[in-house]
Amino acid sequence: MGVSVSKPIVTVCGDGQLARMMQPAAAELDIHLRILAGSPDSSTAQVTPDIVVGDYHKYEDLLAAARGADAVTFEHEHVPNEHSAALIDASFNVQPQPSALRYAQDKLDMRENLSALGAPVPRFSAIESVADARAFFDAVDGRVCLKARRGGYDGKGVWFPSDADLDELVAELLEAGTPLMAEEKVDLTRELSILVARRPSGEAKVWPITQSRQANGICAEAIAPAPNLAPELAERAAALGLSIAESLGVTGVLAVELFAFAGENGEEISINELAMRPHNTGHWTQNGCVTSQFEQHLRAVLDLPLGAVDALAPVTVMANVLGADEDPKMPMPQRVREVMERYPHAKIHLYGKDHRAGRKIGHVNVAGTSLEETRDAAGQAAHFLMHATWA
Amino acid sequence: MGVSVSKPIVTVCGDGQLARMMQPAAAELDIHLRILAGSPDSSTAQVTPDIVVGDYHKYEDLLAAARGADAVTFEHEHVPNEHSAALIDASFNVQPQPSALRYAQDKLDMRENLSALGAPVPRFSAIESVADARAFFDAVDGRVCLKARRGGYDGKGVWFPSDADLDELVAELLEAGTPLMAEEKVDLTRELSILVARRPSGEAKVWPITQSRQANGICAEAIAPAPNLAPELAERAAALGLSIAESLGVTGVLAVELFAFAGENGEEISINELAMRPHNTGHWTQNGCVTSQFEQHLRAVLDLPLGAVDALAPVTVMANVLGADEDPKMPMPQRVREVMERYPHAKIHLYGKDHRAGRKIGHVNVAGTSLEETRDAAGQAAHFLMHATWA
Repeated sequence: MGVSVSKPIVTVCGDGQLARMMQPAAAELDIHLRILAGSPDSSTAQVTPDIVVGDYHKYEDLLAAARGADAVTFEHEHVPNEHSAALIDASFNVQPQPSALRYAQDKLDMRENLSALGAPVPRFSAIESVADARAFFDAVDGRVCLKARRGGYDGKGVWFPSDADLDELVAELLEAGTPLMAEEKVDLTRELSILVARRPSGEAKVWPITQSRQANGICAEAIAPAPNLAPELAERAAALGLSIAESLGVTGVLAVELFAFAGENGEEISINELAMRPHNTGHWTQNGCVTSQFEQHLRAVLDLPLGAVDALAPVTVMANVLGADEDPKMPMPQRVREVMERYPHAKIHLYGKDHRAGRKIGHVNVAGTSLEETRDAAGQAAHFLMHATWA
Repeated sequence: MGVSVSKPIVTVCGDGQLARMMQPAAAELDIHLRILAGSPDSSTAQVTPDIVVGDYHKYEDLLAAARGADAVTFEHEHVPNEHSAALIDASFNVQPQPSALRYAQDKLDMRENLSALGAPVPRFSAIESVADARAFFDAVDGRVCLKARRGGYDGKGVWFPSDADLDELVAELLEAGTPLMAEEKVDLTRELSILVARRPSGEAKVWPITQSRQANGICAEAIAPAPNLAPELAERAAALGLSIAESLGVTGVLAVELFAFAGENGEEISINELAMRPHNTGHWTQNGCVTSQFEQHLRAVLDLPLGAVDALAPVTVMANVLGADEDPKMPMPQRVREVMERYPHAKIHLYGKDHRAGRKIGHVNVAGTSLEETRDAAGQAAHFLMHATWA
C-alpha cells in the first residue's frame, strides 16, 4: 500500500483494542496508522491495512515499524525503555518518552515522584524484605495493600494479606523476584478517573472527571461526568491531572485513577494508578465527547492542537463486555441484534476477540439525560452481550 | 487475514469516500468489510485491509468480492443491474436490489413512478426528439431543465437551454445516444434532503430533515435540522421519505433531494433526485446524530435493527472540502493543523484523495447551539482546508 508523502504516519506498538480504536480517528483525519502487531489476526490487524508483524520486545522489530513514522506511540506501557531510548537516539519521535513512561511502569517510582510533587497518595513503602512488610503492616494497623511494582494490571499483582499470610506471601514473592511495594489500604467510597491529553509542546486538556466501578479488579462501568462530584473537587482533580501530566512530561493520553474516600470535610481523593495511553475509563469519550481519547491521543503524539473535550450529553455511561465464564451458545452477532432491537441508543463497540473468560471483548456506551436510564441501558446491553440473557 | 466464522461480512462495491466512511462503524460493530476496489491505493483501500481489486462492471469480479458475504452493497448506483440480478439468482444477498436501484439510476423512471405514487415532482416529460423538447419548452414557457436520464451527478448531465440553444443541444445529445428527459425548472428557495434508512424486513427510520446548499451543482454545505422549517412540512417530508423507501422497496440509506419553493400557502417541496446509498447531505450524522448514516447503512443491509436517529446538538453544519482551482503550496497536514488550532470543535474528515480541482476531498462537521457560529466555523474550516486562507 502506497503512503502519500503528505500523510502523517503514526506507528502504534500494540495490537489490541486500544490500537484498534485509534483507527476510526486516523481514517477520518487521514493519518496513516502503522501497527506493530504480534499477529496478523490480532484485534487491530483486523481493521487496519498496514501491519508490521513483530515483537515489541525486539529492537529490530520496533525499528522496522518505526521507519518513516512521524510519531511512534503505544497502546500499553510494556515496550522496554531501553528500546524507546535507542529509538529516540536514532532520531525517532517517540511519545510518550521513557522519562515519563517509567512512572506508569513502576508503582514505587510513581508514588515517590508524586509524593514529592505534593500530590495525594496513600501512605506507601518499598518492600525489600519480610521485615519491611511487617513494619509497614504494623504502622498502618494491618490495612495493607501489597503490590508488584511492575507488570500488574486489571487486579493482577495486587494482594491484601492478613496478619497470618503476610510473612509467607512476601517471602514467596521476593523469592520469585517480584519487586514489591506496600500502601495503606484506602476505605474507598468510589473510584474516579482523570483523563488528560498533553502535547510535547505543552498544550494539555482534561476531560470531565469520570467515575468508574471495578469488579474483580477489572473496570466494569464508567460514568461521566462523575455523578454528585463537588465542583470544587472536580476542579481540583482536573488541576491535579494537568499538573501530573506536566510534571512528569507525559505526552498523549494520561489516565490518573483515583480512590475517593470520606475525608474530614467531605469527599477526598488519593491517587491509585497512572496509565499513559488511552484508558478503559475514557471509552465513553467515543460517544460522549466532541473529541474521543483515541483521536486526542493521535493529535497529541503528533503535536497537533488538541480537540475540544466538551461532553455531548448530560451523562454518558460505559459498560464493559467481558468474556463470561462460559461463552453462551447464542453467537455474538445474534446477541448484537437483540441488543440493537432493545436499545437503539446503545453504541456497541466490539474488539474482534475470541471468547475467553474475563477477557475484555467489547463495551457499550450510552449517552443521555437520565443517569438511571443510561446506566440501565448500558449495563443491560453489556450484560446481554456477555451472557445472552437480560439481567 | 482470517475472518472469524461468527463475524458478519459486508461486501461494498466502490472504493471512494463513502465506502471509506463505513469502516469506523464496521470496526466498532465488528462487521468485516470487504471492498471491491478499482485500485489498491484508493480512498477506501487506504483504511481497510480486505480489498478485492477488480472492476464492478465485470460479473466475475463482483462474484469474487461477494463470496462468503452476508450482504453485498454499494457506495454508488453504477453496478450493472444485470450483474446484481445474477448475484441474487446465485443466492447472494444484494441490498439494495435492482428493482429499487433502477429508480436511482433512471431519472425518467423515477419521476414516472413517484408521480404515479402521488409524490410531488416537477412537471416532466420524456424527450426522444427535438419536437418533444420544443413542445415541452412551449408548455412550460421556456422554464426547461434538460437532464440525461442516466449517469449524471454533481451537476453533470443537467442543462438549462435557452430558446436559441434548445434544438441544437437536444439534437446533439440524442445523436450522441444520451437518453433525455426534461422537467420544469423550479424557482427554488432552498434545497432540502430527506435521509431514510430501511431494512429488508421493513423497519425504516428518517433523520431530521437537512438543508443543503449547492455551488456549481456540487453540495457545499448541509445544515441539520433544516432551519426554520415548519413542523408540518418537516413531518410531511419525513413521511414522504418513508413512503418512497417503502414503495420502491429501498434498503440501506435513501436520500431524497428536494427543491423547496414558495407555494400558495407557504413553503412547498418537490422531489429533485434520489440516491440509494449514504449521501453527502447525510455526512453531518457522523458527528451530529446518535447513529451515522454509515453505521445505519451497514445495519440496514444486514437487516439489523436500526439505530436511533436523534440529533446530538441543536444544530450541526457540514461544509464540503473541494479541491481548489490551484492546490495551495501549504501541505494538507499543515492546513489541518491550522484549522485544529482555530476550531477545536471542528470534526475534520479527509478522504485520502490527491488534489484535483473541484474534487470532493473531505468535509468538516461542527455541532453546536448557534446556527451562525457552527456555520461560520464549518465554512471557515472547510475554506482553509481548500485554500490555505481564511475566508
